[in-house]
Amino acid sequence: MLTLYYARGTCALASHLALEYAGAAYETVRVDFGKQEQRSPEYMRVNPKGRVPALLTDRGILTETPALLQFIAQSFPQARLAPLDDPFLMARTNEFNSYLCSTVHVAHAHRVRGYRWVDDADAIEAMKKKVPQTMGDCFALIESGSLKGPWVLGETFSICDMYLFTLAQWLEGDGVDPSRFPKVADHRKRMAADPVVVKVLAAQYA
Amino acid sequence: MLTLYYARGTCALASHLALEYAGAAYETVRVDFGKQEQRSPEYMRVNPKGRVPALLTDRGILTETPALLQFIAQSFPQARLAPLDDPFLMARTNEFNSYLCSTVHVAHAHRVRGYRWVDDADAIEAMKKKVPQTMGDCFALIESGSLKGPWVLGETFSICDMYLFTLAQWLEGDGVDPSRFPKVADHRKRMAADPVVVKVLAAQYA
Repeated sequence: MLTLYYARGTCALASHLALEYAGAAYETVRVDFGKQEQRSPEYMRVNPKGRVPALLTDRGILTETPALLQFIAQSFPQARLAPLDDPFLMARTNEFNSYLCSTVHVAHAHRVRGYRWVDDADAIEAMKKKVPQTMGDCFALIESGSLKGPWVLGETFSICDMYLFTLAQWLEGDGVDPSRFPKVADHRKRMAADPVVVKVLAAQYA
Repeated sequence: MLTLYYARGTCALASHLALEYAGAAYETVRVDFGKQEQRSPEYMRVNPKGRVPALLTDRGILTETPALLQFIAQSFPQARLAPLDDPFLMARTNEFNSYLCSTVHVAHAHRVRGYRWVDDADAIEAMKKKVPQTMGDCFALIESGSLKGPWVLGETFSICDMYLFTLAQWLEGDGVDPSRFPKVADHRKRMAADPVVVKVLAAQYA
């Protein structure tokens, strides 16, 4: 049995979707960021990074979205969630996921968690101002190349699609008009209509 | 034949080391950041992100260090650079590499590339002040848990070691005293003495 620790509105949605698409046996534990539960002694014992997602497995706790996504794909190969046996296509998968975690997610975090990188209140405000530009630039790159269509990797649906759908939720809040990116918007619409996505979102917001 | 685009002093060192440890046939192209070559029209055609590393393969260009490291490990399985067939240990590998790219490298970049996230000059200066703390926190987490010893994954040398060695080079410049982290310092010393590392560094600085 796998246990996913998640919080609403976070990148943990990607791993939650992957577990459901994989047909995995899993349960979830909601971490309430509103109550700062991610910093509680109980949760810090689960994940000393104080963040989500964290995945409890029978061999230990795993963290970091790209690692969880590949772990789920590799643990449930029959679900075909990643091109596991093709080193080049697997690199394309990891290239995309790595860009999302190290560049796109980080750009977004400068609006909501600027205190990670600076103490000065004016600087935190200054950071927020650039987020529409940086997030817009990230999604322009995705729109113009990384998202092959109809899915990220082309004809093959994969863990990349779950991760893209997750971060695309943040565009409006980050001051970016999603209509600038028709391919991303269409991808998001198709994902949102998928019964697996509907089920997972309903569970997270129940 | 593979071609690695790199710049001195950057995270591209990790992929360069992996190619050498893998026994790959490869050549390198140096990108001179001092001359802003990463923004030249020629290089932007190679990598529209304007960054290094980029790896030219016979199927196209790949970017993002964690993706390149796994690609090299998977393309040269006989070199045993990653626990490819064990989903849990592969997740540990990716968890470590993902933390380095999305948290450690990003913490460092706030000293040298703050303009990515803010336009205000005072805010860029304010960001620099926190880098010793954020980089110190990152390496405290690595020292206390992620680096099992003697190698990152324990007894097995892997792509994680090449990436850790690469980012550990930045500690002094980021205002962090490396002696605070004896396990990391010992790891760095052993890596620096390895003939493969000596050869790659000599090639980069020739």
